[in-house]
Amino acid sequence: MKTFPIALLCAAALPATAGAQPRSLDPVAALRQVAALRDAALTDDVAYAITEGLTTEVGQRLAGTDAEARARDWGVARLKALGFRNVHIETYDMPVWVRGEERGEILSPFPQKLSLTALGNSGATPPAGLDAEIVAFPSIEALRAADPAAVRGRIVYLTHAMLPTQDGSSYGASGIVRRQGPTVASQKGAAAIVIRSIGTDHHRTPHTGVQMFADGAAPIPAAALSIPDAEQLDRILKRGRPVRMRLLLTPRQTGMRQSGNVVAEVPGRDPKAGIVVVGGHLDSWDLGTGAIDDATGIAITTAAAKRVMDAGRPLRTIRVVWFGAEEVGAFGGIAYAKAHAGEKHVLMAESDFGADRVWKFDTKVAPGALPVMDRIATALAPLGIARGDNLASGGSDITPLAATGIPIVSLRQDGTRYFDLHHTPDDTLDKVDPIQLRQNVAAWTTMLAVVANDPTELGPVEKGGAE
Amino acid sequence: MKTFPIALLCAAALPATAGAQPRSLDPVAALRQVAALRDAALTDDVAYAITEGLTTEVGQRLAGTDAEARARDWGVARLKALGFRNVHIETYDMPVWVRGEERGEILSPFPQKLSLTALGNSGATPPAGLDAEIVAFPSIEALRAADPAAVRGRIVYLTHAMLPTQDGSSYGASGIVRRQGPTVASQKGAAAIVIRSIGTDHHRTPHTGVQMFADGAAPIPAAALSIPDAEQLDRILKRGRPVRMRLLLTPRQTGMRQSGNVVAEVPGRDPKAGIVVVGGHLDSWDLGTGAIDDATGIAITTAAAKRVMDAGRPLRTIRVVWFGAEEVGAFGGIAYAKAHAGEKHVLMAESDFGADRVWKFDTKVAPGALPVMDRIATALAPLGIARGDNLASGGSDITPLAATGIPIVSLRQDGTRYFDLHHTPDDTLDKVDPIQLRQNVAAWTTMLAVVANDPTELGPVEKGGAE
Repeated sequence: MKTFPIALLCAAALPATAGAQPRSLDPVAALRQVAALRDAALTDDVAYAITEGLTTEVGQRLAGTDAEARARDWGVARLKALGFRNVHIETYDMPVWVRGEERGEILSPFPQKLSLTALGNSGATPPAGLDAEIVAFPSIEALRAADPAAVRGRIVYLTHAMLPTQDGSSYGASGIVRRQGPTVASQKGAAAIVIRSIGTDHHRTPHTGVQMFADGAAPIPAAALSIPDAEQLDRILKRGRPVRMRLLLTPRQTGMRQSGNVVAEVPGRDPKAGIVVVGGHLDSWDLGTGAIDDATGIAITTAAAKRVMDAGRPLRTIRVVWFGAEEVGAFGGIAYAKAHAGEKHVLMAESDFGADRVWKFDTKVAPGALPVMDRIATALAPLGIARGDNLASGGSDITPLAATGIPIVSLRQDGTRYFDLHHTPDDTLDKVDPIQLRQNVAAWTTMLAVVANDPTELGPVEKGGAE
Repeated sequence: MKTFPIALLCAAALPATAGAQPRSLDPVAALRQVAALRDAALTDDVAYAITEGLTTEVGQRLAGTDAEARARDWGVARLKALGFRNVHIETYDMPVWVRGEERGEILSPFPQKLSLTALGNSGATPPAGLDAEIVAFPSIEALRAADPAAVRGRIVYLTHAMLPTQDGSSYGASGIVRRQGPTVASQKGAAAIVIRSIGTDHHRTPHTGVQMFADGAAPIPAAALSIPDAEQLDRILKRGRPVRMRLLLTPRQTGMRQSGNVVAEVPGRDPKAGIVVVGGHLDSWDLGTGAIDDATGIAITTAAAKRVMDAGRPLRTIRVVWFGAEEVGAFGGIAYAKAHAGEKHVLMAESDFGADRVWKFDTKVAPGALPVMDRIATALAPLGIARGDNLASGGSDITPLAATGIPIVSLRQDGTRYFDLHHTPDDTLDKVDPIQLRQNVAAWTTMLAVVANDPTELGPVEKGGAE
């Protein structure tokens, strides 16, 4: 690829604080040069190569396991080979839960096997499994309102009606079933809980995901049925006869283990100009190979940073972070916030919603920085990306630090099919659309090319706004 | 539904042999009455109710198991309730193979678990599993040409490139990998064989299916990888390093067990007018609930027969057969042929290709009967069904008898997505499109309304033509 210095690209419309930055480049020329970087990114192969390599040569990489450690080593080697500087691992310790055997079946009235998987931090059944009658609830509110006498000793079945949404907003409402159901069921004395998978597909591939037993609730076995199995159970329950289920789950807590973030940099020309953090998470759930969650997130942000790096040393340092242990509690993001709290972060941005096309550009910056964001929006428009609002929320990895008042941007991906795959065995490379992946790289390249080279202060922003 | 006698519907264009049949109804009026039955079937709920009931209340029903026996009892009760006559079970014995534990993983160079399932009649690994290096072949021809020294003691990996086809023709070419691969691998001394699933989906749901070790080949462990897993193995092998795999399969042969066909009739007015046999197969593979393979086949043909029955006693007897043990070797079809060889079968037709819309009408009848088939084709055209040829092949259940020279018709279903689901855990009720299911019922109702009431001799046809 032809390279050219982009230090000059973004100097148009500089505020009075811009100091020594040249003012000669007109806005049209600046936009043209960002556009050239953007359009070159539409032929990117780096992001796909990272995604393919990590998912093939490491595969699943559950937080705190040997597989995640192999993924960190893989990441260090790849980031060095791509030309990044200061490539290193920052470790921390975290509690690790691992999956065991998992089986479920209806014993009566219609004997049949079920496809299910344990939720994170699920308790175990006795080694021979447990048998109990099912008591069903259509919502977490109905479970909360239940008489404990109706729940005690039974297997709670909790369902919901999640549908696909482009912005992923249905995950919040339905996800409560997974996040809070096990705690509420435990508090009412349930023997176990099975939920309808938090997902939108129709395959026998159940969706795992984290939950934490809260408020002193004892861990009970907690599993997700695949959606066809949940619908099958709905039909069986509708027959009105008592339904007995057998459940065998043998997961276990293995204690504190080492995890870590992989960090790499594109050093900026001016150390006082601060750091732009971009990244995604390196760990994955253990059922698939973590392709869309979140190999593509680290791949997109890394490929974009490399493109800006190759175009000339930027004003600001770009720091690429492959966060560890996101899925199980954002331990990597918390560790990063603790280790780097004292540094000047000018912007943080995370990609953790698959690799389908970016459709909206949200920001959270100081009012004085909105003209910079508008310039980015202008450059993103030809990619089919609409300007969103200035109320962006972050992602789970950047939130621990960004919530202290650091500006964020969000290149929002189309989530219509994301929850078909999220946390399932089906999260594999074949689900990544290389064309849409490149559109993501182009969007991130565009954003980074501007913010890493424009000296405008983007903050401060209100604390705690990111979630 | 309003009912009316259809004995008169098809008397137009009667040949001289028609005897006492009335000749007064003109062709336009006859077609109009068949059309009324056809259109009423587009609101059918019987086929969906059978499909929903069998897949919910029995679920999987592997041939020769207790589950298949429950399915037969379920069928007898349902067929009696629908008003059929002479409802009974015809039993036979057959060898039964059952699945055990199944696990696979890559040991090196990139450790990871694989999603796979044993093929029918697979041998077992040692109880602790077996480890061996993989030797890969792109085709059965390449495996046949291989030096046994390169295969001995290894795990053969055999792949293919099946794509969806509307007529299902790609199954024949790719299916050879499953049907013959294990035998060839065994003959060359392989420790085991894994194949790319014979399917067209991209889910972690492997496709099982029958194979028979032939020519004295000793049973070896034989499994199908899900398609994403096969593609993952392809990528790993492309790295050029030796690949070691661990395989654990514990299926077993359980000896001879009882299976059976469920038979029901709509008695005809004239016992000498012969029998029209329609049906599908009752058994299923054990991974899903056998919704499209083949609950819908028995549901469609039963619902159509009931509609013709409710419209008035037909000239000919319609016999509905829910064949047992099709998946594992067409034992039900063979038993039926043996038990009923001496009866006058005027036509046989089978539905065993899912429940997506019928798009083509093929026949195999004597030339003199083609005008009757053309009348059916005319009545099918408004359903979007094209007239095919007079070279129809049967299905595996009717072939044992039809190959002796009995006419057949084939209402061919759209198979574009059939091999996404075929023989996988994903063959569940949610895959059935109720609207397309009704189009199937309408097509079969149309065909049956004509052939059960028209006295034209449809045969004889060439022997052995059905396959």
